[in-house]
Amino acid sequence: MPAPEPSPACPAPPASPTRPSLPAAAPHSWAFDVPAAEAPEVREAGTVSTALERVLRGPSGLGTASLYLTRCAEPPAPPPASETSGAPAATEASESSGAPAKGDPIPGLYHHPVPEPDAERVAEVSRRIKAWALDEVSLYPHEWEDQFDGFSVGRYMVACHPDAPTVDHVMLATRLMVAENAVDDCYCEDHGGSPVGLGGRLLLAHTALDPLHTTQEYQPQWEESLHSDAPRRAYRSAMEYFTREASPSQTDRYRHDMARLHLGYLAEAAWAQEDHVPEVWEYLAMRQFNNFRPCPTITDTVGGYELPADLHAQPAMQRVIALAGNATTIVNDLYSYTKELASPGRHLNLPVVIAERENASERDAYLKAVEVHNDLMHTFEAEAAALAAACPLPSVQRFLRGVATWVDGNHYWHQTNTYRYSLPDFW
Amino acid sequence: MPAPEPSPACPAPPASPTRPSLPAAAPHSWAFDVPAAEAPEVREAGTVSTALERVLRGPSGLGTASLYLTRCAEPPAPPPASETSGAPAATEASESSGAPAKGDPIPGLYHHPVPEPDAERVAEVSRRIKAWALDEVSLYPHEWEDQFDGFSVGRYMVACHPDAPTVDHVMLATRLMVAENAVDDCYCEDHGGSPVGLGGRLLLAHTALDPLHTTQEYQPQWEESLHSDAPRRAYRSAMEYFTREASPSQTDRYRHDMARLHLGYLAEAAWAQEDHVPEVWEYLAMRQFNNFRPCPTITDTVGGYELPADLHAQPAMQRVIALAGNATTIVNDLYSYTKELASPGRHLNLPVVIAERENASERDAYLKAVEVHNDLMHTFEAEAAALAAACPLPSVQRFLRGVATWVDGNHYWHQTNTYRYSLPDFW
Repeated sequence: MPAPEPSPACPAPPASPTRPSLPAAAPHSWAFDVPAAEAPEVREAGTVSTALERVLRGPSGLGTASLYLTRCAEPPAPPPASETSGAPAATEASESSGAPAKGDPIPGLYHHPVPEPDAERVAEVSRRIKAWALDEVSLYPHEWEDQFDGFSVGRYMVACHPDAPTVDHVMLATRLMVAENAVDDCYCEDHGGSPVGLGGRLLLAHTALDPLHTTQEYQPQWEESLHSDAPRRAYRSAMEYFTREASPSQTDRYRHDMARLHLGYLAEAAWAQEDHVPEVWEYLAMRQFNNFRPCPTITDTVGGYELPADLHAQPAMQRVIALAGNATTIVNDLYSYTKELASPGRHLNLPVVIAERENASERDAYLKAVEVHNDLMHTFEAEAAALAAACPLPSVQRFLRGVATWVDGNHYWHQTNTYRYSLPDFW
Repeated sequence: MPAPEPSPACPAPPASPTRPSLPAAAPHSWAFDVPAAEAPEVREAGTVSTALERVLRGPSGLGTASLYLTRCAEPPAPPPASETSGAPAATEASESSGAPAKGDPIPGLYHHPVPEPDAERVAEVSRRIKAWALDEVSLYPHEWEDQFDGFSVGRYMVACHPDAPTVDHVMLATRLMVAENAVDDCYCEDHGGSPVGLGGRLLLAHTALDPLHTTQEYQPQWEESLHSDAPRRAYRSAMEYFTREASPSQTDRYRHDMARLHLGYLAEAAWAQEDHVPEVWEYLAMRQFNNFRPCPTITDTVGGYELPADLHAQPAMQRVIALAGNATTIVNDLYSYTKELASPGRHLNLPVVIAERENASERDAYLKAVEVHNDLMHTFEAEAAALAAACPLPSVQRFLRGVATWVDGNHYWHQTNTYRYSLPDFW
């Protein structure tokens, strides 16, 4: 069965910034708002403008109080030595410091640490997502349980969505993240995936997000197909939950971002089939599509509010989203570098492409990829600050903050997921 | 150079239904509004509800006068014998009538004839599109001129967009249509295209519509790449013109529909590489993506108004758009059947897939494909009528009418394009 659709009717006027539909948030102790006085200690002062600091601290003024959750009772954990480093610090770190310890951030990588995600919420999301995977969508056989647990998706999503008003809201993101990984693993990569025939498989899976509308004779066969393998079961179910809470425009945004993701998978697959190494700029273009973008862009749905469609579509907002997605995706290339080198075949990632196309050593290529990441992060922050200054609406401010928080949470998860990732020996 | 983007700023409140930005419409003699008294002669009374008739006639009441152009001075041409046929008539036609003459519609195909497109406007669009193709984007070598002329894209687009206020507005659609065909021909099909490596080529071309945001070192190489072949030059230029007139949400909508189109191409290519014939429902799913959809959904931009994003995203509107796109795409399968049979290799289209998967003769498969089309058309019209009744806003009414007009104009172009298409001998 496709996700149920409401009967045709005119929509109400644009949603108000806070659109509660899931159960109201219960009081809880966690929060993500860094107290204003402490923000400069956490954010690098030299590269973050005052406007962005204001965004990252959250909105202020009349009418914005409802955007805040409870304030963090404890100051954030002291940053590790590398936390405030930008590109110049990368060189310094690589020359002066030793190899990073297990679970350390990449030396010289510009990033922002996050408060430890709320343990109680992590436990609850972890419990629920496993129940969903096993009982609702039969996602994986028993022997993959270790890998599922090692994915630590509960910790990941709680870190990325600290402003979600309830666990139910976090679950919207968590199911989609697990479904996206199931499609990637089963169709593209680790668990039986292959570039051969991928276009057909991905399109049919995409119809679980963007439903088929056909004749009465053929519609039921399509509906049945959505239950025929784990990736489609996962997409269908995760999307059904999401659509119940998201507005039609938020649903449309997610579909578009997933179409982008699938185009990215297919470009990568085409190159893999031909053993083609693209130019660096071509790789970066592909990686703007094969990208985390669908995850940060649901931050408003997960937060229980809506960035209006006309604001989301603004070129400046699109640019900020793309830059954030690109920075956070290169983080994945950097942390998964040794994992991908160890897998069969040549796995393209930014250091590998730079080494090949710019005739660089593995180490130099890796360190250059760190610089590319840092440049993207700095540009993201500068453009987000400019947009925040130009458009001081609460939904815009909160969305920009949500995207930045997702970027930080994503780094945190990569840094700390030592089950999956380890760093190369380049320092 | 990427399409120029306006500086970041908050958008104005939602656009008014009529958003003139191109030069104001000059008086002209053509029009698409069928006088109300004559509508029943043109539209099949038995399957079109009163609500849809009202939509197709156009809005009435206070405040809607500005949505009308000049009324058609002449009644539409008398319909050919087959025009009012639905599925039952298909059988009748195939049993009682002889083979259709050149330029006749497919016997039994449910469709609506359109008034002959304004000859003066067709000539002007044809002149301008050729100048653009040759002088602005160097689209094709001299020896392809006959094929370009035989495409008759000026007549096509004038027939599909009779409510465009100026020739400049028609040109927005015409450039995009030509660019889409250039990508299909050069990357996928007739002129050097291939399924091998298609994912990489299409993604890089897609960045002409959905721009890359990367570091200063790599951004210029991407910008240069947009001038490196005809498909990318065409996409880049056509999108630049489009973006100047479309709102950011309309631009986002077009990008999404083009991502869908490219996913459809890639599913078809994956099947072609494996010589795989999908199930009929799978073929229909692929064809919902490899689809005319990006053409009718710009009807509001070409018409100089905007269907607001939140209305476009409504599930009922998405369903109407998908059904219209699917019906009009199957028209292409039916009219291009003999052309595709004559090309090298097996070219999937609906009759071919039905013949193979349902063990039907070529003739029976073709006639069943006509029925599938007719079912899709009837469902499209019923759902459009329901939406029009539920949502009597001028922009919704005009958009639904624009999509229906596009469907009719597309049929007209296929029927009359005897340079490209001829019918099989099944009657």
